[in-house]
Amino acid sequence: VNNMDRLFEAVGKRGHVCVGLDTAAEYLPPRGGGDTKAVLDFNRAIIDATADVAACYKVQIAYYEEAGLSGLLAYSKTLAYIREKGGLAIADIKRGDIADTAARYAAGHFSGDFEADFVTLSPYMGMDSIEPWLKLAGEKGKGAFVLMRTSNAGMRDFEYLEVQGTGGTRRLYHAVGDKLSELASLHLGMHGYGAFGAVVGCTEREEAAGIRLDYPNLFFLIPGYGAQGGAADDAALLLRGGNGGVVNASRSILKAWVAEAEASGVDKSEVTLDFAAGAARRAVVAMRDAILAAVGEGK
Amino acid sequence: VNNMDRLFEAVGKRGHVCVGLDTAAEYLPPRGGGDTKAVLDFNRAIIDATADVAACYKVQIAYYEEAGLSGLLAYSKTLAYIREKGGLAIADIKRGDIADTAARYAAGHFSGDFEADFVTLSPYMGMDSIEPWLKLAGEKGKGAFVLMRTSNAGMRDFEYLEVQGTGGTRRLYHAVGDKLSELASLHLGMHGYGAFGAVVGCTEREEAAGIRLDYPNLFFLIPGYGAQGGAADDAALLLRGGNGGVVNASRSILKAWVAEAEASGVDKSEVTLDFAAGAARRAVVAMRDAILAAVGEGK
Repeated sequence: VNNMDRLFEAVGKRGHVCVGLDTAAEYLPPRGGGDTKAVLDFNRAIIDATADVAACYKVQIAYYEEAGLSGLLAYSKTLAYIREKGGLAIADIKRGDIADTAARYAAGHFSGDFEADFVTLSPYMGMDSIEPWLKLAGEKGKGAFVLMRTSNAGMRDFEYLEVQGTGGTRRLYHAVGDKLSELASLHLGMHGYGAFGAVVGCTEREEAAGIRLDYPNLFFLIPGYGAQGGAADDAALLLRGGNGGVVNASRSILKAWVAEAEASGVDKSEVTLDFAAGAARRAVVAMRDAILAAVGEGK
Repeated sequence: VNNMDRLFEAVGKRGHVCVGLDTAAEYLPPRGGGDTKAVLDFNRAIIDATADVAACYKVQIAYYEEAGLSGLLAYSKTLAYIREKGGLAIADIKRGDIADTAARYAAGHFSGDFEADFVTLSPYMGMDSIEPWLKLAGEKGKGAFVLMRTSNAGMRDFEYLEVQGTGGTRRLYHAVGDKLSELASLHLGMHGYGAFGAVVGCTEREEAAGIRLDYPNLFFLIPGYGAQGGAADDAALLLRGGNGGVVNASRSILKAWVAEAEASGVDKSEVTLDFAAGAARRAVVAMRDAILAAVGEGK
C-alpha cells in the first residue's frame, strides 16, 4: 500500500478531476474581496462545493509565494482545509535540489505548516534530488509527481531533445520516465503504481498512447486540459483501464463564475461566493463527465 | 548596465566568495539557541562579520521552508538585513514553471517580503519558464542564475546525457548553456555579462576551461567548493580574466566555529555568536585568498 492507492481509489469514486487552486486574487468575484484572506475564503468555498466530485486538489504555491508571508499563510490554511475535509492535496512546488537540501524541502512539505499528500518535483539535477523525498514519503504515507513531459510550448527546448539511447527516438523525457519507472517498480502499491508518478501533459495527442504503454507503473498528473488545448479524449489516452491519472484544470474552474454570469445576464459586480462555488462545481462535473465518457468510448 | 555589473564589481572589490546561508538550526553554537529567531540572529552575525570580505550571500530557501511560516519569516528578515547592509543576495530557490506561474514567482522573489537581487532557476521546462523572469528583472534591476551543470553526483543522470547536436559531444547542459548564452547576448551589461548567468559546479575539472570558453557572456554561480571536492584552482578555471563568477561555500563557513573550537581547545558548549562569527570571517578570508592566489597563478 502506498499513497498512490489512495489517489487511485479517489479516481474510482469521484472521477479524474484535479481542481487546481492556482488562486490569483483577481480571479475572485468582486464581492469576495481581494486580499489573501479572501483567497482563502474563496478556496474553502470551492473545496466545499467540489469535495464529492473531484479526485483531489492541486495547490500551486507560486500564487501564494507571490503575496509573501500572508500568501503562504493562506497556502498553509488551504492545505489544512483540504485535509480537514478528507481530501487529497498535491502541493505544486516543482522543487529540485541536491540531496541534503531535498531532505529539508521534504520535511517542509510532508509535515508542518505546508504538509501536503503529494508534491511535484523537477528532475533536472538527477535522481539524487528525488530520492531523499522517497524516504520521508514512505514514513509519512506521501507521494510525488516528477516533471516528465509538460504541457507548455517550451517543453520542446529540453524535454524534447533526442538523447543517446538504445534504439528508436528517445527523448530526454523518456530518460526521466525510465528512471522514474525503475524507482516505481521497487515499491508498487496494491493497484500497481509507485508512490512517485510523473507529470505528463495531454497536449501531444500522438505521443500519449506510447507514453502510457511505456510506463504502466507511473500514475500521471495530467496538466494541459482546456485552455492549453488538451481535450477529454486526449487525457483518456494517458489513462490505463480507466484509471492511473488525474487531470488538472484551474482557471476554467476558478473562473467558471465569469462565463456563467455572462451567459445568464447576471451583473458581475453582484456575483457572490456561493454563485462562484456553484459555477465551479458545475464546471468540475462537466469535466468529470466528459473524461468518463471519453474513457468509456476508449474501452 | 544590468545587475550582473554590480556582482562583477563586488568581486573586483571583495573577492569571489559567496557565503551560503543554508542555516540549519543545528549548525548554531549551543549558546545561540535553536529556533528560527536564533537562526536569524546567527545569520545577522555572519553577515556583519563578512560584509567587507564576501562578494555576496546565497540564501537557500529550503532551510527556511523546512520550518514553515516562522522559517520563512527568518528568510525574509535575512534578505532584508543583507539589503540593509548594502550587500547582494542570491535567493537559491531553483524555481521553474510555466510562463503564467513563473511571472507569479518572479513577483514574489523580486519584490515584497522575499525580495532578492538574484534568484536561481531550473531550466527543465524550457525557456518559456525562464523568460517571464527577465521582464521584471529588467524593470527592477535584478538577475538570475539558471542551473546548467551542477555539482552533485546525480547531475550525470540527465545534465550529462549526450544530445543530438552539431558536431562533437554535446550534453544536455550544453543545450541549456547555448540557450542561456543566446539570451544573455541580447542585453549585455557593461562588463560583458548578461543579467542571467548559470550555475556551474567546480567539481569536474577537465570540463571547466571548455565551459568558460564556450560561454564567455555567462556569469557563473559556482557551487561544489570544499565539501563536494572542488578546490580553488578548479574554481579559477571557471573565471575569465579573474572575474565572471562567484564561488559558494556554506557549511565550511557557518560551521567554522566547530573546527576552531576543536583546534583551540575551547569547550563547544561555551562558544558564543561572536566566536562563531569571527571563525566564519576567517574561513571566508582564507577561501577568498586561496581563490585570488589561484587566479593569480592562472594568469
